[in-house]
Amino acid sequence: MNIIPFPGKDQWPALLARPVQEAQDIEAKVNPILEKVRNEGDQGIRELALKFDKTVLDNIAFTEAELAGAADQLDESLKQAIGQAYQNIYKFHEAQLQPAEKIETMPGVTCWRKSVGIEKVGIYIPGGSAPLFSTVLMLGIPAKIAGCKEVVLCTPSDHPAILYAAQLVGVTKAFRIGGAQAIAAMAYGTESVPKVYKIFGPGNQYVTTAKMLISKEGVAIDMPAGPSEVAVYADDTAVPAFVAADLLSQAEHGPDSQVLLVSTSKKLLSSVNLTLSSQMDKLPRRDLAAQSIANSKAILLENEQDAIELLNQYAAEHLILSVENAEEVSEKIVNAGSIFLGNYTPESCGDYASGTNHTLPTNGYARAYSGVSVDSFVKKITVQNITKEGIGNIGPVVEAMAEAESLDAHKRAVSIRLKSLL
Amino acid sequence: MNIIPFPGKDQWPALLARPVQEAQDIEAKVNPILEKVRNEGDQGIRELALKFDKTVLDNIAFTEAELAGAADQLDESLKQAIGQAYQNIYKFHEAQLQPAEKIETMPGVTCWRKSVGIEKVGIYIPGGSAPLFSTVLMLGIPAKIAGCKEVVLCTPSDHPAILYAAQLVGVTKAFRIGGAQAIAAMAYGTESVPKVYKIFGPGNQYVTTAKMLISKEGVAIDMPAGPSEVAVYADDTAVPAFVAADLLSQAEHGPDSQVLLVSTSKKLLSSVNLTLSSQMDKLPRRDLAAQSIANSKAILLENEQDAIELLNQYAAEHLILSVENAEEVSEKIVNAGSIFLGNYTPESCGDYASGTNHTLPTNGYARAYSGVSVDSFVKKITVQNITKEGIGNIGPVVEAMAEAESLDAHKRAVSIRLKSLL
Repeated sequence: MNIIPFPGKDQWPALLARPVQEAQDIEAKVNPILEKVRNEGDQGIRELALKFDKTVLDNIAFTEAELAGAADQLDESLKQAIGQAYQNIYKFHEAQLQPAEKIETMPGVTCWRKSVGIEKVGIYIPGGSAPLFSTVLMLGIPAKIAGCKEVVLCTPSDHPAILYAAQLVGVTKAFRIGGAQAIAAMAYGTESVPKVYKIFGPGNQYVTTAKMLISKEGVAIDMPAGPSEVAVYADDTAVPAFVAADLLSQAEHGPDSQVLLVSTSKKLLSSVNLTLSSQMDKLPRRDLAAQSIANSKAILLENEQDAIELLNQYAAEHLILSVENAEEVSEKIVNAGSIFLGNYTPESCGDYASGTNHTLPTNGYARAYSGVSVDSFVKKITVQNITKEGIGNIGPVVEAMAEAESLDAHKRAVSIRLKSLL
Repeated sequence: MNIIPFPGKDQWPALLARPVQEAQDIEAKVNPILEKVRNEGDQGIRELALKFDKTVLDNIAFTEAELAGAADQLDESLKQAIGQAYQNIYKFHEAQLQPAEKIETMPGVTCWRKSVGIEKVGIYIPGGSAPLFSTVLMLGIPAKIAGCKEVVLCTPSDHPAILYAAQLVGVTKAFRIGGAQAIAAMAYGTESVPKVYKIFGPGNQYVTTAKMLISKEGVAIDMPAGPSEVAVYADDTAVPAFVAADLLSQAEHGPDSQVLLVSTSKKLLSSVNLTLSSQMDKLPRRDLAAQSIANSKAILLENEQDAIELLNQYAAEHLILSVENAEEVSEKIVNAGSIFLGNYTPESCGDYASGTNHTLPTNGYARAYSGVSVDSFVKKITVQNITKEGIGNIGPVVEAMAEAESLDAHKRAVSIRLKSLL
């Protein structure tokens, strides 16, 4: 890694800048795909599968037998691991459900919020070399807890672990559709695919561009997407070999993965660099990792205060605090997707099984966005009930404000009730 | 109102369809405005104010003296009303703050979520005939509760009630900028206006288009926007004059306001229609209201089950349940922004002072979106801490899953720690 010693704060923005993603060109390619699926439905999907994936798509939907048969194709040990991850993720997310609490704001004026699962949601799971069944858990479990009635899965992969996880979380319909056309199918609906109200899940630039485009049309999405990233803040209590392993686990995602190491110890940075090369050589995906590491930065800073300030500026998707006072530092972090404390909390654990969600804001979006949670799968509907006594108390307040806003009919809706009580 | 008796369910989608908003033309007008503010900053804002509003904008920022002086220009009774609304809104929203709860998902694996206010947020308040100081409360109070450090307000209005409310909620900087250029100023930052991470507030089609465009660039927004709307479900226990007053309070917003009345009682529909005309004649904004009422629909249905189904299909921003068993019906409503129960709970109360938020999803977005709340102003950052015992428990689970996803470095980040414990 390239070690950058004591950069001035004026240099930080450039150091922390993410690569710019050019969306314009991709939009021009994605728009016709959306249009085709919207107009031609299943037939459009079949033609696009043939064109882009050289796939003859006879059966768009996975059959119940295909889903049920997935379990038999997995090792018992993997099924057990998935089962344990399921339990942990369920336990952590279940606590996010908020019961409705009635609040009397004035005598006779009672307000509350009720959480209702979004009726129809869609999950996209990409194909490619890594069959992301863990993402099926991360999206399907909160959907189940939220009480979503229709949970649609689209994926170009037929990996049995994906289908097994889909069954486990209670996906109601699964389709073998990949790419931007999958997003279009769930956004608009086709003869086979139900139209959903919110779409979740990762994907390549075509998929993420399709999600941004349909979100402009009013279909909700989980969050805007960018390349995955980790920042590690380590001191001399950190084990360099662990830090290197964490950096590599991010780097193996691909050449655009963002890796940042921050320390106030030059010794630590040098030690990490040493072990990094030897660990990298052993990786099957070493070529991908090497490209990402070549673009990564190790920043040496004067003190903890600077480190915290820089980390808050960067707003990392994943932030590992491998420092002695990790929890204390975490309390000063205001921008991050998920934070990992100490030497024995690698990001991998959160990626798979500790219980937290791995769908997190990248690209600095952690400044305004949260990771996926049960909140992402519910609407919170406010309800209010005002008694005759209550309208007597609140009525004059509303009349005065409505009048000052020149909204006379708003005022009259109260006045007519107050008069009826005289 | 046009009474539609017993429409078949196949007719519902057409009956409930919102008018289509053509965004393409407006985007072509808004894009150059965004571009100009991004490139030219304050000077661009000044030129646009001169061009669109014929305003010479010497001082872009409101001075502290201007803000402080606003209180003296308001009647004491209005200040008291605003004070009471502030208290109610504060009380309801304060309860939305969730404390962090540590959850041990496996022995030695502890996860929690902490809520952190978005550091910098922007609020837009339009000009026009109604000075929406109530919206300053509805957005500023949850921002304050969330702990947002920088709360920027842009408005082309210099109405003292807006400036007074801004002071009350603790807006940190206020600017006299209107239209799409205000959204651009807060999204990109200028010499005067700080760049914010999330933008809230209503506006005309230029403003809402600007918000959609900057949200594509990664600046978060409250929610997509459409014309305001109310649906009323009433039975023979409803007071027809109250129902009519509620419909008119929605209709006075403008000709594109959506008004829907649903009942299983023909008698109720006829009675509402009768009183509607006579009430309308007395309104100052009767021309606006008449246009909206002319486009409105009164739908007669067979039974309660149909009514609930239709209301859930429509997904109204505001839903008034003026029926005998209102709370029971409300429990079956899954798509709505905010629900008002019974004869003495007019929408006006929620618009101003009962405590609930009035920034709500329109245009059917209530199927996937919630209204604004404290949640809208915080990020929830997950944190996890795994002990040596914990990594021993969870490690093999993560190793098995990472291996099955072919992410070897993810597995190794765990294995290297497990080995160190042997």
